Amino acid sequence: MANAMNPAFRLLDDAADHSGARIRRIGGLTLWAETLTFTTASARQFLDVTEEVAAVVRRSKVSQGWVSVFSKHTTAAVVLNENEPLLLEDMGAMLERLSTAAGVYQHNDLSRRTGEMDPEECANGHAHCQHLLIGASENIPVAEGRPDLGRWQRIFLLELDRPRDRQLVVQVFGA
Amino acid sequence: MANAMNPAFRLLDDAADHSGARIRRIGGLTLWAETLTFTTASARQFLDVTEEVAAVVRRSKVSQGWVSVFSKHTTAAVVLNENEPLLLEDMGAMLERLSTAAGVYQHNDLSRRTGEMDPEECANGHAHCQHLLIGASENIPVAEGRPDLGRWQRIFLLELDRPRDRQLVVQVFGA
Amino acid sequence: MANAMNPAFRLLDDAADHSGARIRRIGGLTLWAETLTFTTASARQFLDVTEEVAAVVRRSKVSQGWVSVFSKHTTAAVVLNENEPLLLEDMGAMLERLSTAAGVYQHNDLSRRTGEMDPEECANGHAHCQHLLIGASENIPVAEGRPDLGRWQRIFLLELDRPRDRQLVVQVFGA
Repeated sequence: MANAMNPAFRLLDDAADHSGARIRRIGGLTLWAETLTFTTASARQFLDVTEEVAAVVRRSKVSQGWVSVFSKHTTAAVVLNENEPLLLEDMGAMLERLSTAAGVYQHNDLSRRTGEMDPEECANGHAHCQHLLIGASENIPVAEGRPDLGRWQRIFLLELDRPRDRQLVVQVFGA
Repeated sequence: MANAMNPAFRLLDDAADHSGARIRRIGGLTLWAETLTFTTASARQFLDVTEEVAAVVRRSKVSQGWVSVFSKHTTAAVVLNENEPLLLEDMGAMLERLSTAAGVYQHNDLSRRTGEMDPEECANGHAHCQHLLIGASENIPVAEGRPDLGRWQRIFLLELDRPRDRQLVVQVFGA
Repeated sequence: MANAMNPAFRLLDDAADHSGARIRRIGGLTLWAETLTFTTASARQFLDVTEEVAAVVRRSKVSQGWVSVFSKHTTAAVVLNENEPLLLEDMGAMLERLSTAAGVYQHNDLSRRTGEMDPEECANGHAHCQHLLIGASENIPVAEGRPDLGRWQRIFLLELDRPRDRQLVVQVFGA
């Protein structure tokens, strides 16, 4: 799906009628889920997905309720904060300071690792540690058919590892 | 609304019948939302809002379900922890250590900033960074008509910036 | 209840028919809550509770919706990350570095404390501070009757204090 607002975005199940949505309508209540895929460009990129989340809410036709934004990843997080470019650099710098990529992580010693590994596995212990400090999801109220965000709040997918495809489950519930 | 428990609290839409609540009742299920306003007193104040949240749950008459507490701000967070005054100082000190107000933040260099700015904008890069570590919301189970908190858990609005008016969206869902 | 997967686990209300669940079924929607108890073994233990949470989802028979995992504690948190033993040590080491148990916490000075105290109260200021950085809960989408986790995501109860009994409220909602 072409998306003028955000070239990193596409619907996972791309269809003109949004058949990729998993929809339940029960007695005036709607449970609506879409899995969105984004392609990130760099480590510590804050990718603003506010418009994509708002579009899911509009498609669901839920007027009042919740929208949950959930990252299916252990090295990409969901953040609510201000979209001010210098601030995004400040926040990335803080994360790098609290758990630097240059640090020593046992997770990065592949010779000692047990269990399943991705063939593309790379040294990303810092990204997991940073993720621990942020979390995988945010639940946002919906009012009047829109995410009920404050004036400065924007929704971000935060890439903590290298550039890659990332999935967000966006689920709307309400009336 | 006078509130003996917490003078920093008032309902946004102050009315004896709580007409400020956005209410949907559908087939035995209730979706109930109130936007509460609090006035904070200082940086790193942990304002205990447990009783105000419990009052919203009572007004909703939901017996089992969830209550979501959501901050509409990027420099004020929602926290669940223990209300022990010395501990609140410890937690504030840790935040100040992890991202000190005395540090260098590009966000604070207003001469370099692009985009919209508040006329009251002040140097609060540290507050945004601290917020990144805490998050904007908590979802709490409701059981027997009350937030199903553990013995030591209290709900706080945490002011990370200067004193100001802050809004929490408190939303209850259930039966 | 015997549990081959996880000996630290038992249902709070142990009964063959899971009568411990609080259940509401309304017009095709289900609201299902169980309080699970786990016994932790050590400080900074990441106890993998994914299978226990998935079992609650199965018992609820919810196919699409949410599952919320909520810790009733101020020194035990809920985490989504990868279950790789070396990584769990890395994450524990980071938490210990950001707020070390060997640090000075006013909360640990019992002579200055006011208010209610547990007879077993011990020096755990660091555990509260670490909890502030992680949070009490996660909300996870449910799809096709299972938590809709990514390939590497597992659900953990993270013990930040000493070994003890811990309760998680696991609540499922959907159709």
